Amino acid sequence: MMQIRRKQISRKRDFPVDDIRRFLEPGPIVLVSSASKGRRNIMTMGWHMIMGFSPSLVGCFIWDQNESHELIRRSKACVINVPTADLIETVIGVGNCHGSEGDKFDRFSLTPRPAKKVDAPLIAECYANFECKLVDTSLIRRYSLFVFECVKAHVATKPKYPTTVHYRGHGVFMISGHNRSYRRLFKPEMLEE
Amino acid sequence: MMQIRRKQISRKRDFPVDDIRRFLEPGPIVLVSSASKGRRNIMTMGWHMIMGFSPSLVGCFIWDQNESHELIRRSKACVINVPTADLIETVIGVGNCHGSEGDKFDRFSLTPRPAKKVDAPLIAECYANFECKLVDTSLIRRYSLFVFECVKAHVATKPKYPTTVHYRGHGVFMISGHNRSYRRLFKPEMLEE
Repeated sequence: MMQIRRKQISRKRDFPVDDIRRFLEPGPIVLVSSASKGRRNIMTMGWHMIMGFSPSLVGCFIWDQNESHELIRRSKACVINVPTADLIETVIGVGNCHGSEGDKFDRFSLTPRPAKKVDAPLIAECYANFECKLVDTSLIRRYSLFVFECVKAHVATKPKYPTTVHYRGHGVFMISGHNRSYRRLFKPEMLEE
Repeated sequence: MMQIRRKQISRKRDFPVDDIRRFLEPGPIVLVSSASKGRRNIMTMGWHMIMGFSPSLVGCFIWDQNESHELIRRSKACVINVPTADLIETVIGVGNCHGSEGDKFDRFSLTPRPAKKVDAPLIAECYANFECKLVDTSLIRRYSLFVFECVKAHVATKPKYPTTVHYRGHGVFMISGHNRSYRRLFKPEMLEE
């Protein structure tokens, strides 16, 4: 059993769904949670991209060997959870095992919370939780690409920006560094995007 | 005219195309260069994802208001260039202006180099250059999503990992932090992916 050292997550607040790029566009590893017919699962995911603001679209690569692939196809929903660097051992552990090896919430001492708008559990220990509906299944067969719409976002009230983990392959992670505004260099109309 | 302070890029080497995720999966802002019929352009891009190792696929969101959209549709090629943090003012400047406002290589003192396998210029000042062929146009109309295959990769010999810039919207960037191997925590078969 791995050692667990986790920070306490501050209270969460509703966050505008059309601005979740603040947390996803920088490219962190995320945990995807899902449920269907009494089963639930979590997977570690690194291949995702923002595809629109309004509706708030996110494209996710979910390989058909993951149990989550089937659960999400059936329930047409998932939660994208953003873990912080203190959860890195959990992130790796979740990625190391298959859904068939037992319930991952129990195994990794993660706390499921009910979502407001979709049928999938939030992971309480994560900095942010994005409730997503599957809105396009047409790219699943060709590219394992699920297109989701984020319909509700919960984000910790602090810190303003989380310290996230970003995967480079071969066991190497980049940890997110400092954040800085360069607004003064932007044309005003470019800040709308 | 903005002040330019740039580091010298070390010599580049060929890099395995099936391992470019080392640089793209962490989610950096990239510069996309393209050319067609005597015109060339550069755009700043934050919405991209790895979609496969072999072939080496990258999905890129390229809005139809960018001149690059047309150039890439015509030439069926681009180069994805990875800039480092010392180029952040150039990255913002390139994003601030439209291709119709003049040649961006000249305007931002960037050096075009011929690609080996595609008809698009590399940006010499960037840490890595990925020559890409457009392999799927079917998602362009619906999602502005271009699916590219990387056919040749050039990467600076050092440092091993670049310090990259990651966009959060509203003028705020995250600068990549330290890199660390957690191989000891991975199951061996998980390191293959």
